[in-house]
Amino acid sequence: MNFIKAKKDKLKLNEREERMNKTIEIQLNHRTIRAWKEEPLKEDEVQELFDVAMRASTSNGMQQASIIRVKDPEKRQVLSEITTQKYIVDAPELLVFIADNYRNHQILEEKGAKENYTNDADRLLQGITDASIMAQNVTVAAESKGWGVVYFGSILNDPERLVKVLNLPQYTFPVLALGIGIPDQEPQLKPRMDKAYRVFDDEYKSFDSYTEELKDYDEEMTQYYDLRDANRRVDSFTKQVVDKNQITIAKRPEIIRVLKDQGYDL
Amino acid sequence: MNFIKAKKDKLKLNEREERMNKTIEIQLNHRTIRAWKEEPLKEDEVQELFDVAMRASTSNGMQQASIIRVKDPEKRQVLSEITTQKYIVDAPELLVFIADNYRNHQILEEKGAKENYTNDADRLLQGITDASIMAQNVTVAAESKGWGVVYFGSILNDPERLVKVLNLPQYTFPVLALGIGIPDQEPQLKPRMDKAYRVFDDEYKSFDSYTEELKDYDEEMTQYYDLRDANRRVDSFTKQVVDKNQITIAKRPEIIRVLKDQGYDL
Repeated sequence: MNFIKAKKDKLKLNEREERMNKTIEIQLNHRTIRAWKEEPLKEDEVQELFDVAMRASTSNGMQQASIIRVKDPEKRQVLSEITTQKYIVDAPELLVFIADNYRNHQILEEKGAKENYTNDADRLLQGITDASIMAQNVTVAAESKGWGVVYFGSILNDPERLVKVLNLPQYTFPVLALGIGIPDQEPQLKPRMDKAYRVFDDEYKSFDSYTEELKDYDEEMTQYYDLRDANRRVDSFTKQVVDKNQITIAKRPEIIRVLKDQGYDL
Repeated sequence: MNFIKAKKDKLKLNEREERMNKTIEIQLNHRTIRAWKEEPLKEDEVQELFDVAMRASTSNGMQQASIIRVKDPEKRQVLSEITTQKYIVDAPELLVFIADNYRNHQILEEKGAKENYTNDADRLLQGITDASIMAQNVTVAAESKGWGVVYFGSILNDPERLVKVLNLPQYTFPVLALGIGIPDQEPQLKPRMDKAYRVFDDEYKSFDSYTEELKDYDEEMTQYYDLRDANRRVDSFTKQVVDKNQITIAKRPEIIRVLKDQGYDL
């Protein structure tokens, strides 16, 4: 009897190890997918993504994030103009994750609360982290189905226009969008800098010269082919940092102004 | 030959489906764990979490987030004072995720760039979303190993003190912390509001009365036992919204001030 139990426990352990490896294997193989098969995703499977979104951790249990699922081709067209990413139109699923302090603001109003702090920097930050955590939970779930995902941070290239097109009420703000579908490309794994520069014990560790430290990584990056422009290799990381710093997207400096327009007290 | 290939493909599909279900099963079973076995986590497995963190999506490829792994008992003591969560001291692993615009700021300085926008609201927001996405990737990875995780948003109860204790340089800011270990409790699954109130098609949908709409959810919440105080049920959701709004933690309104002290241009 004990022998059988031991064997069973061992099987359980193996099962757990299997599971551990597969989820982590998916995460270690993450790459951005920007081209999808035309095939739509099954509705019940998309709903599963929303179920996963709902179960994500949320600051203080306050659930201060929501999702806008954008299907309307006209709205998608506007999003492609805002992001300058044409392929956003073709994404089988397009989800915008928003910091949502509106719902709890309304609850406080309905309950006749004397004070209402749902629009302060603290709650805004909770909404932003709630929305991001939710988006990454959806990303891992989608990838576990063999689907491919792209993040669009570029929705903030024109936050005011986005707020209008999604009809976002006061005390809400768009954070990130995700395009999801069945992959129709196989990009290379994009090199990342060594964790020695990003994981520190007990306190922040700075380095005398990052350009020196990151030399090997810079070299590795130039060997990588970005599928957005398959015919040329990309620049080194430190050159990208410089070049991307120079890009000024006219409306991005408006983020704080639009946050204030949305009723946040910053 | 074709028959064998077809069989192989079918096996592959089954494998993929298996994988899908297990990852999502883990995500749907997420619950916060606040008590862990004393057993330390194996170093190579903890390193695997950091590998997963490195591979998380990052805005523009800029990798503007880092992790401080807090081991020092004195620093942990300070964190327990800041968060008022005593069990933070006992977490086998304690990771603080920070928005990190310092590294790229230094690269621009070294490269003699004329302008340096690494401290603007846009990059700060990228750093905050990078850090949150990374934290959730680590959370799913840890849970896939059977480990249990708690988020500490309460590290921001005194952002200035935290910045000092972690020796955070300019252009960095702490976002969230995670406690991780082998679970020593089995909490109930915490009820969430229906996704009808959080997932919308094409534009934001508001409701006439949230207190009416959330009546069933409020009822469900009162049936839930929070292990933080196992002897009593928790309040309804809408009551929690009111009560948590009333709590003023003295230093939380300082978030914007400390962000500015950290060199951010808001």
